[in-house]
Amino acid sequence: MAVQKLKIACAGLGRMGKRHALHFLNRTPRAELVAASTPDEVELAWARTNLEPFGVRLYKDYDEMLKHEGLEAVVIASATIVHAEQAIKGIEANLHVLCEKPLSVTVEGSQSVVDAAKKKPHLKVMCGFSRRFDDSYRDAYNKMDTGLIGRPSVFRSQTCDKLDASGFFVAYAEFSGGIFVDCSIHDIDLALWFFGQDSHVKSVVASGITAVQPELAKHKDVDNGVGIVEFYGGQIAYLFCSRMMAAGQDDATEIIGTEGKLTVNAQPSSNLVNIYEPTGIRREIPAHYYGRFEQAFVNEANEFTSCCLEDLKLPMKLTGAVQAVKIGCALQESLNSGKKIYFDEVGRRIEKSQL
Amino acid sequence: MAVQKLKIACAGLGRMGKRHALHFLNRTPRAELVAASTPDEVELAWARTNLEPFGVRLYKDYDEMLKHEGLEAVVIASATIVHAEQAIKGIEANLHVLCEKPLSVTVEGSQSVVDAAKKKPHLKVMCGFSRRFDDSYRDAYNKMDTGLIGRPSVFRSQTCDKLDASGFFVAYAEFSGGIFVDCSIHDIDLALWFFGQDSHVKSVVASGITAVQPELAKHKDVDNGVGIVEFYGGQIAYLFCSRMMAAGQDDATEIIGTEGKLTVNAQPSSNLVNIYEPTGIRREIPAHYYGRFEQAFVNEANEFTSCCLEDLKLPMKLTGAVQAVKIGCALQESLNSGKKIYFDEVGRRIEKSQL
Amino acid sequence: MAVQKLKIACAGLGRMGKRHALHFLNRTPRAELVAASTPDEVELAWARTNLEPFGVRLYKDYDEMLKHEGLEAVVIASATIVHAEQAIKGIEANLHVLCEKPLSVTVEGSQSVVDAAKKKPHLKVMCGFSRRFDDSYRDAYNKMDTGLIGRPSVFRSQTCDKLDASGFFVAYAEFSGGIFVDCSIHDIDLALWFFGQDSHVKSVVASGITAVQPELAKHKDVDNGVGIVEFYGGQIAYLFCSRMMAAGQDDATEIIGTEGKLTVNAQPSSNLVNIYEPTGIRREIPAHYYGRFEQAFVNEANEFTSCCLEDLKLPMKLTGAVQAVKIGCALQESLNSGKKIYFDEVGRRIEKSQL
Amino acid sequence: MAVQKLKIACAGLGRMGKRHALHFLNRTPRAELVAASTPDEVELAWARTNLEPFGVRLYKDYDEMLKHEGLEAVVIASATIVHAEQAIKGIEANLHVLCEKPLSVTVEGSQSVVDAAKKKPHLKVMCGFSRRFDDSYRDAYNKMDTGLIGRPSVFRSQTCDKLDASGFFVAYAEFSGGIFVDCSIHDIDLALWFFGQDSHVKSVVASGITAVQPELAKHKDVDNGVGIVEFYGGQIAYLFCSRMMAAGQDDATEIIGTEGKLTVNAQPSSNLVNIYEPTGIRREIPAHYYGRFEQAFVNEANEFTSCCLEDLKLPMKLTGAVQAVKIGCALQESLNSGKKIYFDEVGRRIEKSQL
Repeated sequence: MAVQKLKIACAGLGRMGKRHALHFLNRTPRAELVAASTPDEVELAWARTNLEPFGVRLYKDYDEMLKHEGLEAVVIASATIVHAEQAIKGIEANLHVLCEKPLSVTVEGSQSVVDAAKKKPHLKVMCGFSRRFDDSYRDAYNKMDTGLIGRPSVFRSQTCDKLDASGFFVAYAEFSGGIFVDCSIHDIDLALWFFGQDSHVKSVVASGITAVQPELAKHKDVDNGVGIVEFYGGQIAYLFCSRMMAAGQDDATEIIGTEGKLTVNAQPSSNLVNIYEPTGIRREIPAHYYGRFEQAFVNEANEFTSCCLEDLKLPMKLTGAVQAVKIGCALQESLNSGKKIYFDEVGRRIEKSQL
Repeated sequence: MAVQKLKIACAGLGRMGKRHALHFLNRTPRAELVAASTPDEVELAWARTNLEPFGVRLYKDYDEMLKHEGLEAVVIASATIVHAEQAIKGIEANLHVLCEKPLSVTVEGSQSVVDAAKKKPHLKVMCGFSRRFDDSYRDAYNKMDTGLIGRPSVFRSQTCDKLDASGFFVAYAEFSGGIFVDCSIHDIDLALWFFGQDSHVKSVVASGITAVQPELAKHKDVDNGVGIVEFYGGQIAYLFCSRMMAAGQDDATEIIGTEGKLTVNAQPSSNLVNIYEPTGIRREIPAHYYGRFEQAFVNEANEFTSCCLEDLKLPMKLTGAVQAVKIGCALQESLNSGKKIYFDEVGRRIEKSQL
Repeated sequence: MAVQKLKIACAGLGRMGKRHALHFLNRTPRAELVAASTPDEVELAWARTNLEPFGVRLYKDYDEMLKHEGLEAVVIASATIVHAEQAIKGIEANLHVLCEKPLSVTVEGSQSVVDAAKKKPHLKVMCGFSRRFDDSYRDAYNKMDTGLIGRPSVFRSQTCDKLDASGFFVAYAEFSGGIFVDCSIHDIDLALWFFGQDSHVKSVVASGITAVQPELAKHKDVDNGVGIVEFYGGQIAYLFCSRMMAAGQDDATEIIGTEGKLTVNAQPSSNLVNIYEPTGIRREIPAHYYGRFEQAFVNEANEFTSCCLEDLKLPMKLTGAVQAVKIGCALQESLNSGKKIYFDEVGRRIEKSQL
Repeated sequence: MAVQKLKIACAGLGRMGKRHALHFLNRTPRAELVAASTPDEVELAWARTNLEPFGVRLYKDYDEMLKHEGLEAVVIASATIVHAEQAIKGIEANLHVLCEKPLSVTVEGSQSVVDAAKKKPHLKVMCGFSRRFDDSYRDAYNKMDTGLIGRPSVFRSQTCDKLDASGFFVAYAEFSGGIFVDCSIHDIDLALWFFGQDSHVKSVVASGITAVQPELAKHKDVDNGVGIVEFYGGQIAYLFCSRMMAAGQDDATEIIGTEGKLTVNAQPSSNLVNIYEPTGIRREIPAHYYGRFEQAFVNEANEFTSCCLEDLKLPMKLTGAVQAVKIGCALQESLNSGKKIYFDEVGRRIEKSQL
């Protein structure tokens, strides 16, 4: 059997790392998960049971793993803070790289990955914006692309996590870059997708509150934020992000065009079951992001693999990931300063009086 | 002011009687409720507060009320058992008659009203199948009528009441004619409407269970029934009726045509509110029939009034009400005998061996 | 018959005026429409056919109508530009006043009505924010009020009109006060209702585009706008208004609380019909505002009437209508200046540097 | 790497055969597709491109394939007419067998597989009722099983295929066993699942029409059928099957219990996209059965594999597949005879007069 499989390693075996590892192990027929790394003993123990018996070599050290013989690609699902560094090392080791979002919580950090990737144009380097691989978002995009709704003009999108009373989000906020960088980054990326990868941001403004987790203030973060992003060319995105959705993960998007509108997940549901009971009719919704986007992650793994194996163009530009972080950081800044932030047509910050 | 109003009286002031009286009093601009009758003291007391101050003359005796000076029409909302008798008396008193469904729980009783009406062709005599006046059913009918779904071929409809643990339905079953005559009559009438008023029944068969109210057996009734009605011409209606819906009134209809399908109320809801809470997303549904069809009853009152005042054709034939009872009684009989019942093309009962 | 009815007149017989007149004539049992006024000959002709035969006296002159003998109340549905003037005259004539929204397109104009009303505390003076009388909004409010969703924290609401290619909205924009004053005023009023009538605005910021009607620019207006309104006390409303919804009137609201979320009309629909056809499953939605809120207007007429007759407290304060205009105007200003606008806790404009 | 994989072969490479083969090849980590067979040259050509390069040995002859070294299991997706024969041969060759539904279009044929399986109790022999592996059906079942809806009492289920004007269904009807055996078999199996595998059928009755394909009559089949199945113990299933759904695959189920109701797919949808356009709001639905149940087939492959590898109990009894065919055949007979069919408590046909 002469079928070529992509030899890939997984960096990081936390919540998302485990999932990526298993997707490449079991649900990506053209890939072969050959290695995984984590410095964490608990994660390693998990890997000894769930990965090692299937031929996956385990490493405690990322750098060591990069030397794994025959390795062709790496998926990076470690802590956000090391995304950029590990991605650059992977690139320098001549590996294709699929890096979890965001590349970095700073624009500079994100740009450094783009710079490294530019030097190795034969490599596939992708930031894992999972929604781009979701069947519903793709269907909406394709419908828009055929002109079904005319010119897309206004974009509404929200990423709302289930309320977690444990305080998890407070600790998490220390390194997440803030809610607009951590959550809204998905919506921003979608806006850039639907409005066109080369859309130029004109202004951002944001507001937020700490309705349930006042401790977030110490990390300059909020549990509910709204923002408006204006683009040159006359398009507007407005965003909502929240950490206090009672019912579960509530991510929805609307694309309003001059001749129609598309919605994605405006009526969330876990599955096709409705429950009729004395209090009414009820449906459940996914508790977490993965419950909504599991298949998108699997699609992502498979497409990334195909692009590597067949030297195909990736479905999105890496530079878009920098744009998304830039907009997310500006929203977070506006949230904290209370001021609107303006950009000129080449993306430089300007004062309103200069306009 | 020379505007003519229809002088109408209301017979019976029970649950539906009160509603009809108030509809004609307050929500039917072209009608004037001039009288109401009930032998019941409690109902009379209600009427003294709610009708009399607005100029409605109260009667204990129906026959007396028929002599009310200038009376032009009567709406009959008394106990089912006296529907036919009161309707005939109204007709004989030269009054237009709007009679609550069913005309009678027997075919003969129903036919006697038709016979009386035939002798007074100038009068408007209508059986109040409220769903015919519901905006959604009308919209569905009109869409079908324009050919949107091709030829209507299969018809599914259900009338499901909210579970009432009080035992009300057991007592009620003694005089209701049974669940197929009381509930499914609406669905049967809809089938006759959508398939055409002159559709001829070919066979009926029904089954049922007493899932929550075994005492219904003493009245030869059930709390859940299903039935199939075949029509000559190749059309089929299948029906479900229930007295144990936990969530509330759950009445739904599907009309399946050769080129499309229409549904009415397949996703019941009290209003436009959705509640997101830790157990999921919930909407409430009406607890009772009137919660679903209130506006239809008001429309009915207004249209009946217009037909009387302007001598317009009623929206449905009175003979249809006999057909509906005939089919409902046959379903109830089949439910009890366990046998399928056959009719020839002119509506006579036949044995299968004769076919 | 000693039942008292409220003698009311209707000022203006344009699109909404006709509706108000007919609601008070036919669908408000405790009111008697005794007069109507309009300077417009076409509207008068309509009234001669539709109102005069039912005892409604017609006037060409509003001031004359105010002298109609026995008149107790007036509903003002004339052009927005004369709302305030007519409301004040009505108050001065000792009439209860129900004035279509907005009281005026300026804060000062709106305040002048409040000032006039203060001098006649025995009169009922109400600005007709129809959604306050909508069953679904009321149900949502009541559910929130019982604590079902915890503390309301984020409020999303949109008013989106069906695309009208005729250019109507361009001409209309000259006097409408702009899209935030004309459309979003409803959403702003809802925010004040759900967050509490005494919420104090902290800042507003808005953006907009002319996606289909570039001529709106000459009236400093847009066809799509988004805005964020911050309130002191840690609550945020974010709004969307549009004049280019392809499918029809698309008004939706979400109230996000610390323990749950309520949505109103997130899945718009004209009625309960679904159409299954080769292209999928379709439902229709109302083409216009009235299609969505007809019953709310009728409720409004009936409740206003009851409040007048029984000297009951109105369901909302008149001062709220000034607040709503103030916020709407500030959003419209922000839209045009591109700047965020700040208020101190007593509602005075401040510069950000002062905060 | 010592991980054991189940060596499985696929018999038949038609529409479903290709899918099963690919599921076992790519989406069933614990299985290894080692062989496939088909006598059809076109199918073989497909297999040479899509299976052979991945190490799958191809056979023209089923019997030859059964001798494939190390083979442990076979999935049978050939023409229905050879299901039973091939299943029995597989069993006799000491292979685990996953056989596409139905085992046979006759009760006797189906029973012969059960008889063969009984002789080899160490083998896993399963009829592939895919809906048993669907997440939504499982969720509904589990909710029912925990008592959420009380005692399940009435069961409504429909299998409705998209209208296919090509005449495919006419040719297909020659060997399909008829619409109740081919389509409703799924619904019958679901009824047996939800009511309990050991439910005993008491009576069946069915009606049908040929609304769009009159040629079906020559195969004693219809394009729309409805049926009622009574069970001993007081439970009723009523069914609808159709070959003329305009919008696409429309399979829905309701389980009505004494304390609640569960619906599965009552609001079908391809994905989470809604399209707002001038004609209203639209969603698409799957065109075919596989569009609705793809993931269920994958789950089926994985669970069957696990049961074989770990000697686990299969999720359903093989005898249920005989019951389902028995009920399906009886419904088809009733459809054609126009008569109701009765069974005694041990499953023997009786005349009504004997009851």
